[in-house]
Amino acid sequence: MTKPILAVYAIIKDWQLKEITETAQEYEVKLKKDITEEDLSRIQIVYGWNKYLSEKKDQLTQLRWIQKETAGLDSIPEEIRNNEHITISNMSGVHAVPITENVFGYIMSVARGIIAGIKSQQDKQWNKDILSNMFSLKDKKILVYGTGAIGKEIARTAKFFQMTTLGVNSNGREITHYDQTYTMDDSLASLAEVDFVVNALPLTKVSKAYFNQVFFTKMKSSAYFINIGRGESVTNEDLLEALDKGQIAGAYLDVTAPEPLPEDSELWSGKNLVITPHVSGNVEHFREAIYPIFKENLDQYIQDKTIVINEYNRKKGY
Amino acid sequence: MTKPILAVYAIIKDWQLKEITETAQEYEVKLKKDITEEDLSRIQIVYGWNKYLSEKKDQLTQLRWIQKETAGLDSIPEEIRNNEHITISNMSGVHAVPITENVFGYIMSVARGIIAGIKSQQDKQWNKDILSNMFSLKDKKILVYGTGAIGKEIARTAKFFQMTTLGVNSNGREITHYDQTYTMDDSLASLAEVDFVVNALPLTKVSKAYFNQVFFTKMKSSAYFINIGRGESVTNEDLLEALDKGQIAGAYLDVTAPEPLPEDSELWSGKNLVITPHVSGNVEHFREAIYPIFKENLDQYIQDKTIVINEYNRKKGY
Repeated sequence: MTKPILAVYAIIKDWQLKEITETAQEYEVKLKKDITEEDLSRIQIVYGWNKYLSEKKDQLTQLRWIQKETAGLDSIPEEIRNNEHITISNMSGVHAVPITENVFGYIMSVARGIIAGIKSQQDKQWNKDILSNMFSLKDKKILVYGTGAIGKEIARTAKFFQMTTLGVNSNGREITHYDQTYTMDDSLASLAEVDFVVNALPLTKVSKAYFNQVFFTKMKSSAYFINIGRGESVTNEDLLEALDKGQIAGAYLDVTAPEPLPEDSELWSGKNLVITPHVSGNVEHFREAIYPIFKENLDQYIQDKTIVINEYNRKKGY
Repeated sequence: MTKPILAVYAIIKDWQLKEITETAQEYEVKLKKDITEEDLSRIQIVYGWNKYLSEKKDQLTQLRWIQKETAGLDSIPEEIRNNEHITISNMSGVHAVPITENVFGYIMSVARGIIAGIKSQQDKQWNKDILSNMFSLKDKKILVYGTGAIGKEIARTAKFFQMTTLGVNSNGREITHYDQTYTMDDSLASLAEVDFVVNALPLTKVSKAYFNQVFFTKMKSSAYFINIGRGESVTNEDLLEALDKGQIAGAYLDVTAPEPLPEDSELWSGKNLVITPHVSGNVEHFREAIYPIFKENLDQYIQDKTIVINEYNRKKGY
């Protein structure tokens, strides 16, 4: 009898391959470069993912578990995500700290005059007017959409800086480090007093185009919007209009729709808008950080076909 | 007998003036605008300071206590600072949190690709090369010159982000939140492994031009220099040369010499250099924050001519 395949699409080191092979003896462990179209129907576990697998999804008849090597799952076709026989897990925890550092890198540099300073510097002007828009984080209110691993780390950091933390999740349940939590619908009423809005939601039917004109209009003119979730959650034209009209004070996008953002996109020159090219999840020693998560799940999966951490919840959509 | 004068050069509110007057009944409380040259010889306490007082220092024969309304004392003439009969106190604690936010606004935005992103954005380029210089703060080493109120807050924040904290003070004594402390001389040996150097020293004979070619040459080429102390502690040409040659990766100056920095200064266009116009100490609700410190000292001073907090140490020079 031919063994099922454990397909490795993530980049791994030799010692990791050896360890995986020893752990998963009932499986044939094959690297991406060695996988042929004939192999597809024998794949039971995938570590990593790529476009080729999405295109050939109909041939993945034995697929039972995907361990993604990123936080987002939207590169996996909906058909697979909705398939109850396939377990999906991600690497959300690994990205929580670096993404939070990007969020606070922006928050503190915009609050403390550094972004305004960079602009004055280009004009070679010692511009003390910067002071008028400067503030400290203490007692400022941050509203975070998404209270998963990333949202929790953002709130933990915000509390260190003595901010008031408001969180949004599907049912408004309480979450550590959050002073208050809301459902999506209830969150809108709080926008009038919030200084920073952060989108840390995965892309779902509910979050798609959620940050639109209606939303921005409810924000304070001194407030900032940050997107480290998915670009498709924001209506670009509405954001540009809100910035241009001064309905909000500024925005930071690490994710955009589309990606890469083409040179002729109007987002590039948005007023008081900072863009980074989807880099916030970057972990310096990424391979070292993610392999232990896969290994922990693999050990359990070999025992009883269940996994330990970061399992995708089909009902919630993340 | 005429009363001694408590001269108010700080901007205060009516209720604060009333409270001061009630507390200091043995004094005639006079506001800056009401003080004449004849009054100078009767001034015993000054809340605030200005150039006029520096110019007329020889007439301040009865001066016994200056409560500055900033952290720095270098605007007070050396003759007065060296006079053992005059107590001097500052507002250093008030500025510690906002200055630390500037330091970490820069650290996190340079570490997380935001400053590089702002540049790519101007070229309308989705530049993933940014990734190659990105890193997380965990386990990175920060060396702070000056372990007073500001240096302590920087270290406390660095520990939250799991950095290794090295501090420098006059005798290398241990300080809370610092993993290790050095004297100025001993600190130089650690430069080869430090990722961020922060100058939070007051301007003294020792700190003047301390950050010069010799210093920058000892730093790692991947390391960053931050000055929130005094501009005169840095030799501008040496910093520009170190940046230009890539001896260090970047720098952030909130203070410069001179100030304001003239339009023709070469600092403005320094490579990988960010400048803000001496704004980091800005406290949004400054008046609310500083008055209680003066009041606490005043209450004590009225009792026994001593003060409670932030007293200048003549020997140490800060």
